[in-house]
Amino acid sequence: MRITKGVIAAAGKGTRFLPATKAVPKELLPVVDKPIIQYIVEEFVAAGIKDIAIVTAGDASIVAKHFQTNPDLEAHLQASGKTRLLREIRSITSMARITFLRQRGPYGNGTPCLVAKKFIGRQPFVYAFGDDLVLAPSSFTKQMCAAYRQQPGIYLGAQRVPTREAHKYGILEIGKDKRTNEVAGIVEKPARVHGQTALANIGRFILPPEIFPILSKKRLGAGSELWLVDAIQALIRSGHRAFYKKIERGEWYTTGDPINYLAAVRAYALARPDLQHRAKHIFK
Amino acid sequence: MRITKGVIAAAGKGTRFLPATKAVPKELLPVVDKPIIQYIVEEFVAAGIKDIAIVTAGDASIVAKHFQTNPDLEAHLQASGKTRLLREIRSITSMARITFLRQRGPYGNGTPCLVAKKFIGRQPFVYAFGDDLVLAPSSFTKQMCAAYRQQPGIYLGAQRVPTREAHKYGILEIGKDKRTNEVAGIVEKPARVHGQTALANIGRFILPPEIFPILSKKRLGAGSELWLVDAIQALIRSGHRAFYKKIERGEWYTTGDPINYLAAVRAYALARPDLQHRAKHIFK
Repeated sequence: MRITKGVIAAAGKGTRFLPATKAVPKELLPVVDKPIIQYIVEEFVAAGIKDIAIVTAGDASIVAKHFQTNPDLEAHLQASGKTRLLREIRSITSMARITFLRQRGPYGNGTPCLVAKKFIGRQPFVYAFGDDLVLAPSSFTKQMCAAYRQQPGIYLGAQRVPTREAHKYGILEIGKDKRTNEVAGIVEKPARVHGQTALANIGRFILPPEIFPILSKKRLGAGSELWLVDAIQALIRSGHRAFYKKIERGEWYTTGDPINYLAAVRAYALARPDLQHRAKHIFK
Repeated sequence: MRITKGVIAAAGKGTRFLPATKAVPKELLPVVDKPIIQYIVEEFVAAGIKDIAIVTAGDASIVAKHFQTNPDLEAHLQASGKTRLLREIRSITSMARITFLRQRGPYGNGTPCLVAKKFIGRQPFVYAFGDDLVLAPSSFTKQMCAAYRQQPGIYLGAQRVPTREAHKYGILEIGKDKRTNEVAGIVEKPARVHGQTALANIGRFILPPEIFPILSKKRLGAGSELWLVDAIQALIRSGHRAFYKKIERGEWYTTGDPINYLAAVRAYALARPDLQHRAKHIFK
């Protein structure tokens, strides 16, 4: 089954980026000169996913404005002969059908998923955390969808991290048959992990519609929040097969706090053909 | 005469930061986690200037929202016990009286100044370009106002630049008496400069109200734009004394294009006591 719909959870309050996020939603903060959320929409679009719901906690009007036609801006770019930029600006509007959904319900990274239940209907879909970026020559969502076509199931994006950092992440337990990339379970922020590295879950998922009834009935987890991982574990226990997909030739960047955001800004600047030469002088 | 009013020119279209500036005004782009324009407002406030006009080209509502009370946000910070952050958020609203003026008239960096004529009335004032930041332990506007109190006159912010970069800036010609910091004239983007370094004008000024009639009558300069420097030259020719003020123990950063913006982001992150330790690992 081809995946055609995607959901982006962008319902954080952006408290860690105050005061910058007092009037500007966190998902519109720029990584170099493009809002964080546009990178994720483009990653979806590159995977053929053009029906996208963005779930926000507060007023979505500024985010919506970013994805809507701006006639004044287009007229200005036309008049000043900036045709390449004009095409780029127009493509933001035309590349996908974007639906904005307002988050209701308990806190937690499972809630934006549940809010998208009606939007998704009865089909598998891609789900992304709005502050996780994957810098890779080919769309990571596309990489995940390719794996899904080979072997359908639940998919969890993954990247190896040093064991000493495992306590910060959801760590994937690998199934007995090492050839299949099957996930046996997920341990949230484990205190102790064996080995040199651990397989951390990153904010990209392929999920079946069966996740919705589980999320609706789910008791709240740690900190009285609705956790996506608890629902995925319940699916695995009820017989769903789940697999991890590691990033091919790329790197995961989270933009959830200023330090990781700065690391992302540096990496994206150094990866930009038009900027990297001069960016090297700044960042080296 | 004490200076009590200031004007910030924030009327650029932000074209060089597209697509990030499609829905977000350029002056709200964050340097680390604070909008560019807030740094300038704080620089003014530290100099005792609390009556501030921000001149924008388009819709100022998002910028205004940044400086207005946000009861929802304040309630959230209160409820989650983030009292230090709550104080910081409240101070954005209380630290100054901010007036928003909509730019009308020809392009050019003199127009936002002319738009503020009524706001200023008949007194000297501080004028800042909204994309120039000065990273210094003490407010550069305060440094300029201190010089002004010693010796009244027009003031132009200044920093030495290598001669090979002089063609990018307005270069100050120093008067014959080297002891007085007097400016004899300003050459816009000179093709050739003598010596190892040149004194570049940066986007901070103390201006007399006599600038307004000159700007109103002024013929448009290069590129059919209204240039502030042309008006300052006319004031000097008509007998006004102008001085330069170099940044003490600080550095000028312009945020007008992505590369210089990235350099500013790096410098501000490395200067932040709470971030510098971890920022060093990213940027070194």
